[in-house]
Amino acid sequence: MPSLVEICSPQNPRVKDLARLKEGKHRRRAGCYVVEGLRELERAVAGGADIRALYTCEDYWTGPDYALLAARVAELPGVESFRMAIPAYEKASNRENPDGLLAVAAMRKSGLADLKLGDTPLIMLIEHVEKPGNLGTLLRSADAAGADAVIVTDPVTDLYSPQAIRASQGSIFAMQTAFADNAQAKAFFRERGIRAVAATPDADKTLWEADMRGALALLLGSEAEGLSSFWMDDPGTMRAKIPMSGRSADSLNVSAAAAIFLFEAVRQRSTAC
Amino acid sequence: MPSLVEICSPQNPRVKDLARLKEGKHRRRAGCYVVEGLRELERAVAGGADIRALYTCEDYWTGPDYALLAARVAELPGVESFRMAIPAYEKASNRENPDGLLAVAAMRKSGLADLKLGDTPLIMLIEHVEKPGNLGTLLRSADAAGADAVIVTDPVTDLYSPQAIRASQGSIFAMQTAFADNAQAKAFFRERGIRAVAATPDADKTLWEADMRGALALLLGSEAEGLSSFWMDDPGTMRAKIPMSGRSADSLNVSAAAAIFLFEAVRQRSTAC
Repeated sequence: MPSLVEICSPQNPRVKDLARLKEGKHRRRAGCYVVEGLRELERAVAGGADIRALYTCEDYWTGPDYALLAARVAELPGVESFRMAIPAYEKASNRENPDGLLAVAAMRKSGLADLKLGDTPLIMLIEHVEKPGNLGTLLRSADAAGADAVIVTDPVTDLYSPQAIRASQGSIFAMQTAFADNAQAKAFFRERGIRAVAATPDADKTLWEADMRGALALLLGSEAEGLSSFWMDDPGTMRAKIPMSGRSADSLNVSAAAAIFLFEAVRQRSTAC
Repeated sequence: MPSLVEICSPQNPRVKDLARLKEGKHRRRAGCYVVEGLRELERAVAGGADIRALYTCEDYWTGPDYALLAARVAELPGVESFRMAIPAYEKASNRENPDGLLAVAAMRKSGLADLKLGDTPLIMLIEHVEKPGNLGTLLRSADAAGADAVIVTDPVTDLYSPQAIRASQGSIFAMQTAFADNAQAKAFFRERGIRAVAATPDADKTLWEADMRGALALLLGSEAEGLSSFWMDDPGTMRAKIPMSGRSADSLNVSAAAAIFLFEAVRQRSTAC
């Protein structure tokens, strides 16, 4: 393991920078996010996250796994390593029970042009999703369905909050993501011959009747308000609904609805219909 | 509105009973749960929850909706009404920002024999689900899919925690639920000709290949450990998997997986395959 810089004081500027990354606006500004804890860091490494810095506090470690993972991360190319004293680590940490492993990784802030897509990609476009837990579950489902990319068109939707990272179970590190505005995304879909399907209750066809084979973008809006008129008023947007027979629930949870749509697309694309 | 009993002291035995209902074991013992807040209480009334008592604290009310709903609930048959002073209400409340409406409802603790089912019911059996948010989402999805009943075979799975109630968006009040052990459930399925399908990665068939028409029980285990050997070792249990192509995620979130299974069952049952 390379020699480590030691940080003792919570006043250290690096600690202050780390603590600021707890807030979404600072993450967006810095283009970085925090991966905290043994399990999350393992997933980040496995998923090929772009880790830039490692912060350790051995006083919290409870077994040999911590030192092993720390050594592995420290040897990744481009990773700076720092050792911290408890007061400094506590200030940087976002957990009630810190475990002494924390890393900073660079967001994959790709644009649409950076996406590597085959001829018939399956894309999930998130226009707006409020809850970080739902966002993480969406990414996990998109990954499980073998989706090629996730496009986010709402600048406030924060894929990199600690809760979203946890709920994604590592998928956030593995998925291709791109940030764009709606107009850019629509132009991109048109150029590439990608059909856009809106998941919306306001549709005549069910998702079983909609043809989801070929190059496809599944559009997801917010649970409360659905997709914006930008997509809904566009005659180029296909619409498909999940037929509901609930006695009480207005609609499905957005991550449940997305999972149903994603795997219906997988079904249609994998079976002879 | 009928005359109200006034409760001023946090030491009042009713307040202590209410505060105890914050814990699952006390809810199970009492057979009751708490519905707190305007929106939840509206959903409980709409869903036909078996409300037994209403506790109000007008000091928190912020509009006319509160008094209207309180009056409606107070007039339901069998509901006792109590007015509370702030210190008593604060002790009973489970919220950071109470809104002055709280009710106690009786759990629908039906057994299997109480279930009203048609000839080809769609049932969701939950063997074990850890997170209350996932449980609530499961109920919401089951309701949206028009499932006839939810059977819970794990005595610790708590459908009536505040988080599960919130995530269910009212479905907890509307769904038929039954509590049983695994052996009772298996006997019940055999008697009624209900086929059991295990949602499990350990299957040869995909959910699209499994026949989910007819009387069906979808079996869900825990996200970490899956279904127990009671179901998995039974040759009478059909197995079906969701094919995964995730780079990082081990598997889907349990509520996403359940939603996919439920709506695949709906698809098969509603379309000519």
